[in-house]
Amino acid sequence: MAQPEQSSNQPPIQDVVLIVGGGPGISSSCARLFSENGMRVGVAVRNPAKSALENLEKTHGVRRYACDASEPADVETLFQNVVRDLGRPTLVVHNIDGRVPGIFGKRITEAEPDMVLDTVRNSAFSAFLIGQQAARLMIENTADANGAKGTIIFTNASAALKGFPSSGAFAMACHAKSGLAQSMARELMPLGIHVANVPIDAAIGWTQEDGTRAHRRAGKTVDDNMADPDCIAETYLQLHRQHRSTWAFEIVLRPWVESW
Amino acid sequence: MAQPEQSSNQPPIQDVVLIVGGGPGISSSCARLFSENGMRVGVAVRNPAKSALENLEKTHGVRRYACDASEPADVETLFQNVVRDLGRPTLVVHNIDGRVPGIFGKRITEAEPDMVLDTVRNSAFSAFLIGQQAARLMIENTADANGAKGTIIFTNASAALKGFPSSGAFAMACHAKSGLAQSMARELMPLGIHVANVPIDAAIGWTQEDGTRAHRRAGKTVDDNMADPDCIAETYLQLHRQHRSTWAFEIVLRPWVESW
Amino acid sequence: MAQPEQSSNQPPIQDVVLIVGGGPGISSSCARLFSENGMRVGVAVRNPAKSALENLEKTHGVRRYACDASEPADVETLFQNVVRDLGRPTLVVHNIDGRVPGIFGKRITEAEPDMVLDTVRNSAFSAFLIGQQAARLMIENTADANGAKGTIIFTNASAALKGFPSSGAFAMACHAKSGLAQSMARELMPLGIHVANVPIDAAIGWTQEDGTRAHRRAGKTVDDNMADPDCIAETYLQLHRQHRSTWAFEIVLRPWVESW
Amino acid sequence: MAQPEQSSNQPPIQDVVLIVGGGPGISSSCARLFSENGMRVGVAVRNPAKSALENLEKTHGVRRYACDASEPADVETLFQNVVRDLGRPTLVVHNIDGRVPGIFGKRITEAEPDMVLDTVRNSAFSAFLIGQQAARLMIENTADANGAKGTIIFTNASAALKGFPSSGAFAMACHAKSGLAQSMARELMPLGIHVANVPIDAAIGWTQEDGTRAHRRAGKTVDDNMADPDCIAETYLQLHRQHRSTWAFEIVLRPWVESW
Repeated sequence: MAQPEQSSNQPPIQDVVLIVGGGPGISSSCARLFSENGMRVGVAVRNPAKSALENLEKTHGVRRYACDASEPADVETLFQNVVRDLGRPTLVVHNIDGRVPGIFGKRITEAEPDMVLDTVRNSAFSAFLIGQQAARLMIENTADANGAKGTIIFTNASAALKGFPSSGAFAMACHAKSGLAQSMARELMPLGIHVANVPIDAAIGWTQEDGTRAHRRAGKTVDDNMADPDCIAETYLQLHRQHRSTWAFEIVLRPWVESW
Repeated sequence: MAQPEQSSNQPPIQDVVLIVGGGPGISSSCARLFSENGMRVGVAVRNPAKSALENLEKTHGVRRYACDASEPADVETLFQNVVRDLGRPTLVVHNIDGRVPGIFGKRITEAEPDMVLDTVRNSAFSAFLIGQQAARLMIENTADANGAKGTIIFTNASAALKGFPSSGAFAMACHAKSGLAQSMARELMPLGIHVANVPIDAAIGWTQEDGTRAHRRAGKTVDDNMADPDCIAETYLQLHRQHRSTWAFEIVLRPWVESW
Repeated sequence: MAQPEQSSNQPPIQDVVLIVGGGPGISSSCARLFSENGMRVGVAVRNPAKSALENLEKTHGVRRYACDASEPADVETLFQNVVRDLGRPTLVVHNIDGRVPGIFGKRITEAEPDMVLDTVRNSAFSAFLIGQQAARLMIENTADANGAKGTIIFTNASAALKGFPSSGAFAMACHAKSGLAQSMARELMPLGIHVANVPIDAAIGWTQEDGTRAHRRAGKTVDDNMADPDCIAETYLQLHRQHRSTWAFEIVLRPWVESW
Repeated sequence: MAQPEQSSNQPPIQDVVLIVGGGPGISSSCARLFSENGMRVGVAVRNPAKSALENLEKTHGVRRYACDASEPADVETLFQNVVRDLGRPTLVVHNIDGRVPGIFGKRITEAEPDMVLDTVRNSAFSAFLIGQQAARLMIENTADANGAKGTIIFTNASAALKGFPSSGAFAMACHAKSGLAQSMARELMPLGIHVANVPIDAAIGWTQEDGTRAHRRAGKTVDDNMADPDCIAETYLQLHRQHRSTWAFEIVLRPWVESW
């Protein structure tokens, strides 16, 4: 990214990244790409024994953290550990979808209240907790050559753009995440922290070990008709490197063939 | 409203209204106006001893119900009682703002996690609970002359349109409510239930017993520069009476002098 | 509508309405409803010999004006004639769709430049010309009991909400009309003029003389699955009567079965 | 950008860029950056003798074309000349603001109809003409390694997001451009052409020869509080290089201190 005001000869700041959520899609792609770009990477996840993460530790030195991101105490401890192990984060990515499995496709008349509240807690409330700790630390960071003290990225979904039928809980969660991201952006951008909301308006696919394409839900196989998480990670890196004179708050990503 | 399909000589259906939230502003204006238009009106509120409601019981026969609208069991009981006392609701209005007092103006770095979650529970989760019970009952209603089985209205706020700084919790709550309303509208409108989201993009004033104008927050006194809850109630009545050939999902109301 | 500040015993101001566009749908329904509510009504149209208008002149005393609304001089003359014949307008409705017939369904690669520009002129530019003359007159009006000096309503279409494929010219025209309406609302509402944009997100049907339902495009026959122009007119009347403490700028109307 | 499907050993396609509009801000920054990235660059402008362009021809081999982009015949000739001189374009950027000088700050009651129509012609209608010719050529292109046949980018302004008072003509023009871009995106993206709309929600500054910062309107001098056109060009290059599995349609760019 153009850096029109870089005026010192100091070495560039070492980026420390915390990725919250550890699936084989966006989180893995981010961990890999950010590592390859010289950043120190930590990934927080409920169950750090997931195979995707184990692999990344071996191949890329990515550090795993156990954390229930909807628990305030857990989140506080997470950030303390990341600072201790890797340093103060300059990039935090919140990748949690948060849907309780049983909630998929439930009509408003059928959705169990507990599942609805859990979906909102897992997704939007954890985004608040992660965003809050990130903001507290980043405010104290030194600005880098682009004038930024740090970047906070919220991965979001189609349901942030439109409340679909039989999907009330997820619509609530994704809209709440967008509202939070907007409020944080208006509050933190003038303090030098870049906040971004990135709704992925598509199914997300990824490449499996056997080279074929996988996807959370079965039945979609055609190559680049699903969002490629490696490409999403690329956009996140670009967002992090944007100069503060031209920050994007929201980028909706969708495949060329997606109907919208 | 035009009623192009009214074809029978049956008496019109008696409207039964449940208003959730019982302040001296929108809820009181709705209760008054709906009563005066021949509807049976119930108001649910945490503390039904509020003076605004006591008055309305005396003057307009409005029925009071105690209910914590963020508690699933409470909400279920509420609807059972309303059906028993007044009949099956044809209009349900959710008027809860939901902000925990201490959350006002809190920066993202300061907001207490408990208060944030409570705000979302009070506002958006209670909207889900109320909306769910309303939907379950209304689906079984007989359609009226306008082709509608019922109307569900969510009062919302500026924070549904824009996430303001130092207001993350409310931005989450109001955006979540909008997402829920959208999902419900897409699901329930083809079943004959009108769902509407009404962000009031302004401070709301009301007339006190001494004839002067009051407002939740002090210091605003000029006449009609605040949203008049009597006028808001009027819009709700119009929404309820719209023919299903032209339903409005969202109406933003703001005073003539409001900047937006 | 509630009129909390009506304090005088003066007779209410006689409403004068100018409807621009004269089809058998919205314009006819508006002319009929407004007449029946005691307003003096004029309708401006390119060819005033249209049968729909002739009828309304006989039955409702609606006055017809010939006007090419995309011609500045024509529009100026129109308003002079309306003031002379009916008085200063307090309600102006712009109902012109504006699509040149040949432009329907044209791909971006096929659309003839002349037709594209004509569509924008017919729709958005005529909206500007009509809105400008209306504003000039209304600013000098005396405020009515609702605090309003007048109302300007722009009928709009789905293409104002979303740019559909093979529909670039209409997307341009409808988006431009929305942008104009927004700018006018922010400018004129604080001066006491209510400006509203009403996208009808549906096909519009109307009742023919033989009692069956007609529609611009063939093949849709089911009753209230199309927007009923009588119901649209009802919403316009409500908008005109809204108190200035709670003005709606935009109302999207769609039938209960419409997908969105 | 990740290129998961690059499977051949063919040399990469030589990018040919056409930039429409030739100011010292975005157009110059784009011309410079794209040249430095190995693309062949042409710039079309009403008066190609502008000093900014003369410089770029000397230093970067940028080719200048005279063209009134609101004239269909001119635009057709332009594309013929570009194809002849540089080859078939793979990236076209429309940078025209289009406001007739006298229209700035004009109230709706004051704006001259001719200036309003000219503003819409200069901006939105020229965007249509340029977009149409670009689409016709690109549809015949061979897809590159990212699966794209070409990229069309429309630079837009705050007025595309919000219609400001005393700014009706520009609100019309910018909204129209957004509507066109949306329609084109839905039509052309499934055909392999990436269409993007980029509202710059800020004043745009640039560095003058003496090293100080300039801006279209006087009085803004603080460093990176204005959008830096070099950074905007960087985003355009990233958009062009996005893989088609994750195309962004709209990116709003604003400086960190901008209020929104």
